[in-house]
Amino acid sequence: MQGGATARLPDPGEGLAARYSRVRAGTMALAEGLSAEDMTVQSMPDASPVKWHLAHTSWFFETFLLTPGLPGYRPFHPSFGYLFNSYYEAVGARHPRPMRGLLTRPGVAEVIAYRRHVDEAMAALLAQGREEPAALVALGLAHEEQHQELIVMDLLHLLSLNPLAPAWKPMRRPAPCEADPGRWLSFDGGIRSIGWDGSHHGSHCGGGFAFDNEGPRHEVLLRPFRLFSRPVTNGEWLAFIEAGGYGEPSLWLSDGWAAVQAQGWQAPAYWRRRDDGWTGFTPAGDLPFDPDAPVCHVSFYEADAFARWAGKRLPLEAEWEVAAEGLEPAGNTLGSGLLRPAAAPARRDGRPGQMFGDVWEWTASAYSPYPGFRPAAGAVGEYNGKFMANQMVLRGGCCATPDGHVRASYRNFFYPHQRWMFAGVRLAEDA
Amino acid sequence: MQGGATARLPDPGEGLAARYSRVRAGTMALAEGLSAEDMTVQSMPDASPVKWHLAHTSWFFETFLLTPGLPGYRPFHPSFGYLFNSYYEAVGARHPRPMRGLLTRPGVAEVIAYRRHVDEAMAALLAQGREEPAALVALGLAHEEQHQELIVMDLLHLLSLNPLAPAWKPMRRPAPCEADPGRWLSFDGGIRSIGWDGSHHGSHCGGGFAFDNEGPRHEVLLRPFRLFSRPVTNGEWLAFIEAGGYGEPSLWLSDGWAAVQAQGWQAPAYWRRRDDGWTGFTPAGDLPFDPDAPVCHVSFYEADAFARWAGKRLPLEAEWEVAAEGLEPAGNTLGSGLLRPAAAPARRDGRPGQMFGDVWEWTASAYSPYPGFRPAAGAVGEYNGKFMANQMVLRGGCCATPDGHVRASYRNFFYPHQRWMFAGVRLAEDA
Amino acid sequence: MQGGATARLPDPGEGLAARYSRVRAGTMALAEGLSAEDMTVQSMPDASPVKWHLAHTSWFFETFLLTPGLPGYRPFHPSFGYLFNSYYEAVGARHPRPMRGLLTRPGVAEVIAYRRHVDEAMAALLAQGREEPAALVALGLAHEEQHQELIVMDLLHLLSLNPLAPAWKPMRRPAPCEADPGRWLSFDGGIRSIGWDGSHHGSHCGGGFAFDNEGPRHEVLLRPFRLFSRPVTNGEWLAFIEAGGYGEPSLWLSDGWAAVQAQGWQAPAYWRRRDDGWTGFTPAGDLPFDPDAPVCHVSFYEADAFARWAGKRLPLEAEWEVAAEGLEPAGNTLGSGLLRPAAAPARRDGRPGQMFGDVWEWTASAYSPYPGFRPAAGAVGEYNGKFMANQMVLRGGCCATPDGHVRASYRNFFYPHQRWMFAGVRLAEDA
Amino acid sequence: MQGGATARLPDPGEGLAARYSRVRAGTMALAEGLSAEDMTVQSMPDASPVKWHLAHTSWFFETFLLTPGLPGYRPFHPSFGYLFNSYYEAVGARHPRPMRGLLTRPGVAEVIAYRRHVDEAMAALLAQGREEPAALVALGLAHEEQHQELIVMDLLHLLSLNPLAPAWKPMRRPAPCEADPGRWLSFDGGIRSIGWDGSHHGSHCGGGFAFDNEGPRHEVLLRPFRLFSRPVTNGEWLAFIEAGGYGEPSLWLSDGWAAVQAQGWQAPAYWRRRDDGWTGFTPAGDLPFDPDAPVCHVSFYEADAFARWAGKRLPLEAEWEVAAEGLEPAGNTLGSGLLRPAAAPARRDGRPGQMFGDVWEWTASAYSPYPGFRPAAGAVGEYNGKFMANQMVLRGGCCATPDGHVRASYRNFFYPHQRWMFAGVRLAEDA
Repeated sequence: MQGGATARLPDPGEGLAARYSRVRAGTMALAEGLSAEDMTVQSMPDASPVKWHLAHTSWFFETFLLTPGLPGYRPFHPSFGYLFNSYYEAVGARHPRPMRGLLTRPGVAEVIAYRRHVDEAMAALLAQGREEPAALVALGLAHEEQHQELIVMDLLHLLSLNPLAPAWKPMRRPAPCEADPGRWLSFDGGIRSIGWDGSHHGSHCGGGFAFDNEGPRHEVLLRPFRLFSRPVTNGEWLAFIEAGGYGEPSLWLSDGWAAVQAQGWQAPAYWRRRDDGWTGFTPAGDLPFDPDAPVCHVSFYEADAFARWAGKRLPLEAEWEVAAEGLEPAGNTLGSGLLRPAAAPARRDGRPGQMFGDVWEWTASAYSPYPGFRPAAGAVGEYNGKFMANQMVLRGGCCATPDGHVRASYRNFFYPHQRWMFAGVRLAEDA
Repeated sequence: MQGGATARLPDPGEGLAARYSRVRAGTMALAEGLSAEDMTVQSMPDASPVKWHLAHTSWFFETFLLTPGLPGYRPFHPSFGYLFNSYYEAVGARHPRPMRGLLTRPGVAEVIAYRRHVDEAMAALLAQGREEPAALVALGLAHEEQHQELIVMDLLHLLSLNPLAPAWKPMRRPAPCEADPGRWLSFDGGIRSIGWDGSHHGSHCGGGFAFDNEGPRHEVLLRPFRLFSRPVTNGEWLAFIEAGGYGEPSLWLSDGWAAVQAQGWQAPAYWRRRDDGWTGFTPAGDLPFDPDAPVCHVSFYEADAFARWAGKRLPLEAEWEVAAEGLEPAGNTLGSGLLRPAAAPARRDGRPGQMFGDVWEWTASAYSPYPGFRPAAGAVGEYNGKFMANQMVLRGGCCATPDGHVRASYRNFFYPHQRWMFAGVRLAEDA
Repeated sequence: MQGGATARLPDPGEGLAARYSRVRAGTMALAEGLSAEDMTVQSMPDASPVKWHLAHTSWFFETFLLTPGLPGYRPFHPSFGYLFNSYYEAVGARHPRPMRGLLTRPGVAEVIAYRRHVDEAMAALLAQGREEPAALVALGLAHEEQHQELIVMDLLHLLSLNPLAPAWKPMRRPAPCEADPGRWLSFDGGIRSIGWDGSHHGSHCGGGFAFDNEGPRHEVLLRPFRLFSRPVTNGEWLAFIEAGGYGEPSLWLSDGWAAVQAQGWQAPAYWRRRDDGWTGFTPAGDLPFDPDAPVCHVSFYEADAFARWAGKRLPLEAEWEVAAEGLEPAGNTLGSGLLRPAAAPARRDGRPGQMFGDVWEWTASAYSPYPGFRPAAGAVGEYNGKFMANQMVLRGGCCATPDGHVRASYRNFFYPHQRWMFAGVRLAEDA
Repeated sequence: MQGGATARLPDPGEGLAARYSRVRAGTMALAEGLSAEDMTVQSMPDASPVKWHLAHTSWFFETFLLTPGLPGYRPFHPSFGYLFNSYYEAVGARHPRPMRGLLTRPGVAEVIAYRRHVDEAMAALLAQGREEPAALVALGLAHEEQHQELIVMDLLHLLSLNPLAPAWKPMRRPAPCEADPGRWLSFDGGIRSIGWDGSHHGSHCGGGFAFDNEGPRHEVLLRPFRLFSRPVTNGEWLAFIEAGGYGEPSLWLSDGWAAVQAQGWQAPAYWRRRDDGWTGFTPAGDLPFDPDAPVCHVSFYEADAFARWAGKRLPLEAEWEVAAEGLEPAGNTLGSGLLRPAAAPARRDGRPGQMFGDVWEWTASAYSPYPGFRPAAGAVGEYNGKFMANQMVLRGGCCATPDGHVRASYRNFFYPHQRWMFAGVRLAEDA
């Protein structure tokens, strides 16, 4: 089986060591087909070299599990703690992010050796069968899965800047919606609960893992609302373009309009206008425009402008979560192949389909702490909390998200101008 | 009477024409003591020349009321529509904001003539006694009051960059809190209503004006919480500085820590470390540090870091509004003199004091539309809605806010890195 | 008499005190017609506010003559030494150049009082009739004359950015060349001497002043060359534009082509394309295009590209000086009125006309020290020498240069991308 | 034999085909020891990836010789003309210079295949034994040798930014001067000739090649002068540092002082202050400070400031060339090994030693066209002429310059702030 982020599907009953092996192998499988050159270059400060992702995810286990927890463990290299720390201030100084692409050494081979060194030590640690490290290992694996998605995003961005428009390899893409003409699904208002149940927080028991920012579970007050049964499609977006949406300031937030002008946006990222129509740049290279597939690689500003143009709005994250609760992320049930079966259309029971695993869906909610949120103690507490400003929440996971990684309570977040992730739009309206 | 933004106090029973005269005169009174040089220079892109404020507020009446509504009205100058449009895309092209300070012509005298021209025409318009323009006139006057505060902010920023540290004139300052040692006031949770009652929206009847972003009134779900009875003081902030708060990354949001490093922040804006202690730069020049006065000129990032250091948090805007409802803004009851009597300490009835008119209080709430919010039709709809991204809500008004301008539902908003407004901090915690 | 930089013509026999009074009065006469607003704003880092020029030229006398040389002299203000130092590192710290426009205080009136204070003290100093200060006074007056020209340049740049295109006042303009169809004048090669004769260096005796960078006089080896009898005209430049000169990279130096693209140059500075033809922005406002007048406000890059397009080259500064020797600068003989008589056409004796006082003429020579050049001792030694890198020499003076200021050996210098001075082009070729 | 830029020494009698093979092999030999990662990354806009150099030098032969001159030649790849054009506007559009490092594809292996493809076709072309292409081939080889030096410079800069301070491989370094305590050598003034004799221009006959910017040969007028017998050493530079040279503005050109402050210069590039003294970063990694070796990696600004501090000046390029005429570049006679014998000290005949092959020596001469200079016709005419602005001439070649590449008339040029080339200083003074 090709593509996706993992070579094997998660097994509900797998043990922690097996899971560790599976996820780590999935990262390496993902890198197949990339040259040393591809894995070294950094295309923008927001992105990192693939090589850096391979090393940083290992650094996480070394720093938070092996060094403090495995007696006699020797770090692979005295400088890697400096080179491969991402943003943990409490851990010490680090190599500046915009300069990650200057590190031609260590090379890819040495980074792979680093991974092996860490994997062997982790095997020893996990073989001890101790209970305490389980939560941190689960966190490390979830972290690694996030970087699997980042590898796809960052590599796609890098290749998109190459005039040769090189193809990497076929990968899972957002499933087309042709089976779903779309309809409005209604939800009641009232007091509802959202967020991860804190009692399982940080635990891997029964697959019950969540990031700290997903909790605590808490009550919210919703007004009756409607969600559309599927994401906005490329075809619908083309209508927005052709209606002059990118040239009409009244549709845009002020900061969004400034971005349109400064960046010269005229279409989603990676769209290219050819003589014979539009194409979209993907891991498999430039592909013809599919009007039925969900639109992808749009910023929050674009999503918001589209919704205004359509006379609708973006959903609140709480609305999204309430609608998604009880739905299974597609990956868990449908498998993940190169040509994934189209996600289920709007279900008979009135729930929307395609909420998971096609495109991250921008919400109207700024990324803020939930009531009662407290970051974890220690350096890992820097994981999510310190980013709770200036970003917007996205929900649902995308085609590049590893199977089993997302859930209804999952909160992703990006700055409103960013477009290199697989982000799309679902419309909402007041009932 | 000296200082403040207005020369006369609002009278609950005053008619629209009288109110127009009072507010417009207040703007001119504010400019007293400024030279043509002072009124011409722009100190940063965020700020505007005083002269520009004088002209732009007149442009507002000319554009939205006189040109469409007064038969035979002749615009004062054919280019002023271009020069003094701030950001209304629907009105047409405009002079770029960062270049406002290059306009040495028209000079101050011509701008004052422009004001007179507009005032005479507005007198004619208001003398017609028609009902329809009332809401727009009220909006124009509220807009002018906002620019009165901006004049103080912008001029203070300009003078702060002058090595001579020149004094402008004595003005109202945040009232010291020495009468209030501070205590925690508890509030119940549950479903509460906040926001302006839409039925009066945009109307001036009975003083009942509110900006569009204050509504619609809607229900929110609050958890039990506590607010401190007064804002954080300079003395408390000094303790934060001396404890190394500006050097400890774990206290800061990631974007905030980046701002600390890029800007070299070590204290609030306008604080200066002298051999014999700190001073603060004010409209009256450099003044000695008052440990009992509310801290002022801090960014959201600093407010948030301080709260984290103190083991507390910032209030949500809904919490703030619930606590403030029923309180009268100080200006309405206490008058506004140079040496304003200290605001009332925490009231016997368990309400906090000093919620209005000393410092804008940063909240933890991102500036978003209320449920059901719709901007006004036409160009004035660009007033507030298009800024609903990337900014944080502040509440309560400050010493530079004209009397009668704020209310419990008033939502001010700034970017989290900005510091030139009179912004301070009130602490909150979960009950 | 109106216009020009000085209100009175220099008198060969005038004493130093009279000359001081004349030059200083000329500066004030120049400022007539400017508002306080006009005199305060800084339009770009390269330019300074008029008010700053008025103060800085006074600072020069205060710092280098009064404080060290007039017993009992009290500086006007303790901070002016900091505020109005331009670039003399040896004198101490100074206000950053790009922030000169933020100084709304001192205001224009106070700066004029400063000038009077200095003038009175200088009168006392000069009344002592001592010999030693004469050279420094002459330097200070030449310095003041340079700032007279800068006032015109800087104010013109400021007004050019105003959408109202305001006129300041009529001024002398480059004399049209209609009397001179142009012809090539030949000069012999061989060893020639150029540069100011050091024996008179820095002295005012007999009007014999020169800046340090004009000497020592030294021999150069020239090859036979030809100079065109007059500068390139607007009409000739229009032909270059219409031939696509601004779009053809092969005509441009690499750095010049980068400037064309980065700045979007399509014509000289201040040219504006109207429906009915080109205009040029001048101190008298937008004026219709005069095809016979020398082209003005072009950068070195443009001058060089034009010459390449014409199959010619720019003259070396030594070629220019040899051709100009023996010619009297026009101002000395022709007076300087608003409508100056056309400069003499190519003379019967084979010398070119119009070499002085119309437009500064770019040369092909980088601004370097002459052999044996040594800066003056002390802070005034920073006057010219430290700028001898990255700039190109211009010769001849322009319409904004005060009468009597230039001479054949005069070396002006600007960066090759700069255009706000009155700079034009004279063509040369090998014989 | 290791190091240097070429694996074999030039043989005076070698034919063009043999020379082609030798030079091209030398480039590949130079790349030995570099990983694909090393060869892909671009460390700054001024530098290029090694891979790009390998491809661009092949592009030169393909574009200027094979495509126009070898019947039936098929370009290796239709996009390489776009990707690997450096700056030839006449050849068409090109990939932006600052984005060269984003081209992970084509990979190193494909670039090497490109080189082979070109080499085979060039062999066929050269086997035809035609006369006409000889000059262009010689130019292409000289061009390739320049890129050999750029490879060393650019790779050194890249590795210098790696916190691991990785060593590449031992290479020839500037020869220490311990055999030469130094003395002043006097030269007469008068009319002298410099520059390449045009009759051999562009020809490879008898090794007689020169770049277009070295001619025409022409007369210059020199005054008597003295040159120091050897370059300034590290030890002498350390004295400058310790005397506070980097902190004393009076020693610096104005633009130079601005660079010192903006860049934070406190020592030459690649110097690092350790607890136990200074080291210098070299292709062989960090090496201890050798006080007798010529100082290297200094900017023009630093060279100029040092000379002023020493009470001397930099030589004019004509002075340098006159002194060097008749001297053989060291590489031709002494061989080029890893540990090259110290260059000859000042010769008995009064000529300075060590003028070639250790460090490029900054001159006081701006890079300008010689009298009568005309660029070659066609796109290759963009080779040197269009850079004749804003740069300074350096003379003599350096340790990274391929043997046989330089000569007395050779004119190298860099911007005055640049430091990543192997640039040093020789002092001069008036006699």
